[in-house]
Amino acid sequence: MKVGILGSGMVGQTLAAKLVERGQDVMVSARSPEKVAAWAAGAGVKVGSLSETAAHGAIVINATKGEASVEALRAAGEANLAGKILVDIANPLDFSRGMPPTLWVSNTDSLGEQIQQAFPQAKVVKALNTLNAGLMVEPGKLAGGDHTIFVSGNDPAAKAEVSRLLGEWFGWRDIIDLGDITTARGTESLLPVWIRLMMAFGHANFQFKIVR
Amino acid sequence: MKVGILGSGMVGQTLAAKLVERGQDVMVSARSPEKVAAWAAGAGVKVGSLSETAAHGAIVINATKGEASVEALRAAGEANLAGKILVDIANPLDFSRGMPPTLWVSNTDSLGEQIQQAFPQAKVVKALNTLNAGLMVEPGKLAGGDHTIFVSGNDPAAKAEVSRLLGEWFGWRDIIDLGDITTARGTESLLPVWIRLMMAFGHANFQFKIVR
Repeated sequence: MKVGILGSGMVGQTLAAKLVERGQDVMVSARSPEKVAAWAAGAGVKVGSLSETAAHGAIVINATKGEASVEALRAAGEANLAGKILVDIANPLDFSRGMPPTLWVSNTDSLGEQIQQAFPQAKVVKALNTLNAGLMVEPGKLAGGDHTIFVSGNDPAAKAEVSRLLGEWFGWRDIIDLGDITTARGTESLLPVWIRLMMAFGHANFQFKIVR
Repeated sequence: MKVGILGSGMVGQTLAAKLVERGQDVMVSARSPEKVAAWAAGAGVKVGSLSETAAHGAIVINATKGEASVEALRAAGEANLAGKILVDIANPLDFSRGMPPTLWVSNTDSLGEQIQQAFPQAKVVKALNTLNAGLMVEPGKLAGGDHTIFVSGNDPAAKAEVSRLLGEWFGWRDIIDLGDITTARGTESLLPVWIRLMMAFGHANFQFKIVR
């Protein structure tokens, strides 16, 4: 499958490399392509502009920083996103006051909703924003994969497809469909406790499990 | 141990009844004592005013509604709380716009901090605000108790004592000390996802586990 990953930071690179390993045709966007050229060549990942990357993907993943996401998606081009699944894994984290960051939108709104509102023709599915990148692509390396992720979105078929792909690509087994895109308020609100757990543990190799 | 529970709603009653079962000397506060008299007599729980209940407790539990907590604690009396552990299990839930509720304080502040600030001589420990009352007092009835709760507070000895008591009283084994009372911003932020999970499942018999 052709996958376009907007953003080539640590999270974007981790996703891209694993998706290539799993046989997908992956392009990442980079503002300074020369900075990721060596990595991309080694990993077998294509590199393009935001709009080239969005056009490449049959499915598009937003792995840009939350504060830059809407602007990056505008540069990616509404037409390149229209009708496609857009997996939003970003978080509205504001580090301007240091650690721990706050959320610049929360409680009565979410970044997932803002993106869906700005790009009404995209099928936004909020997912994978509640754990570190290493675990996103290899859940089995912690407790045999016995932990939980979530999907939020307005299009049931898009959520089902994302859930299927997360299982096929990475081995996810426990994926809870929380409801429409407003439920991204719930999963984005996991960040304040996730960050404090990371600070308490001194590492990010942990995960939420919903026991039921 | 003498335990004062402020509030005799469902959560206060559940805690009180289990604590009596576990041999504690428990008083709950009630605005209309006649409404809880029959229950209290059956459960072996004393009933008093807010100030009588706070005075009774060697340890005090805030099980009032979040929106009424600071006012209830003022009525309980600063002197009756001074030097004592005050376990705050309330959440700042605003139901005025219907379901799901929002938080009326979040992200940059928390109810736990507001209570600690209003009652600087109390040793506030935020705990048990992340799950339903039945599981608070009997974690073993879900997955053999293999799930997680949190403590937040400025006094390490108070957090250690609360953690010990939660183990002794109810059987809690996995209790994470997140840090000072500002980390209540993290656990109170679990409510937006907890509520949406409850709405998705149609029941509240689930719990967070931090897999690590």
